[in-house]
Amino acid sequence: MKKIEEYVRSIPDFPEPGIIFRDVTSILQDADGFALAVDSMQALLDGVEVDVIAGAESRGFIFGAPIAYNLHKPFVLIRKKGKLPCETIESSYDLEYGSATIEMHKDAVTPGQKVVLVDDLIATGGTIEATARMVEELGGKVVKIITLMELEGLNGRKRLKDYDVASVICYEGK
Amino acid sequence: MKKIEEYVRSIPDFPEPGIIFRDVTSILQDADGFALAVDSMQALLDGVEVDVIAGAESRGFIFGAPIAYNLHKPFVLIRKKGKLPCETIESSYDLEYGSATIEMHKDAVTPGQKVVLVDDLIATGGTIEATARMVEELGGKVVKIITLMELEGLNGRKRLKDYDVASVICYEGK
Repeated sequence: MKKIEEYVRSIPDFPEPGIIFRDVTSILQDADGFALAVDSMQALLDGVEVDVIAGAESRGFIFGAPIAYNLHKPFVLIRKKGKLPCETIESSYDLEYGSATIEMHKDAVTPGQKVVLVDDLIATGGTIEATARMVEELGGKVVKIITLMELEGLNGRKRLKDYDVASVICYEGK
Repeated sequence: MKKIEEYVRSIPDFPEPGIIFRDVTSILQDADGFALAVDSMQALLDGVEVDVIAGAESRGFIFGAPIAYNLHKPFVLIRKKGKLPCETIESSYDLEYGSATIEMHKDAVTPGQKVVLVDDLIATGGTIEATARMVEELGGKVVKIITLMELEGLNGRKRLKDYDVASVICYEGK
């Protein structure tokens, strides 16, 4: 059986020189690769008590939604500002140039709920940390953060040191 | 058992006056609602031969990904221009003001493949029609279009008259 790493297409110098882009679409475009990715991520939740799965727009939806469905849990959307129709809370994080703001519905998590954050990739950890802060503001507990890939050279795990973080594939570089 | 319609939160005058926004997050935030939505959409594919599931950024991912996983099919991403790292084809469609361009990878569909398009909503049908055109440009056959909701007053089905379209919930208005 192919290993999950073998499904990832690596694209040098995208979106800018010096960056190796780890392309998730090459995994998804193979039925076995997609199944293996979802199953491997879900296995990181073995033994974890979960009430809610949350995923960030838009690649977090690709893995968060099947995992929420498989575990029969609610799926909460983390979206860019202005996309959610009801009352929201927001959280901002720094980008290389400027900043970005994400939102979630205020009623998406209730106090005491055990929340798992799902994303495709940990790079600097900025989006995930901002998401975790929102969940906590609503009284939820971030019990686990799972991703498919992690770029260790960007030190996202250091930024997320207060959380239980697990990823399926770790790349040493950026 | 609650009907799927009962999970939809309707928000008047969002994002602008006169529009009733049909909020999908209220379905997702309920484990039973989310399961029922995915299962009901998937049931629309009974008897349909499928090679590939395609979903449009970003709410198409929420339903397309679990359905692709459940059917053990590849999942192809339709994204806004500039997000996909490899060679793409693109398709534009009109918005109320201006236009939008979406892309897919050239290697995402091969000639003769049977492709199902999944989205949360048919409004004017613009995104879905643009997606179907791209699939056909790559030699794929759009065998079915499935969505959770359809706003009949916007005549999307007329625009998509060349396709086999099915949705779980039909709203008469806009």
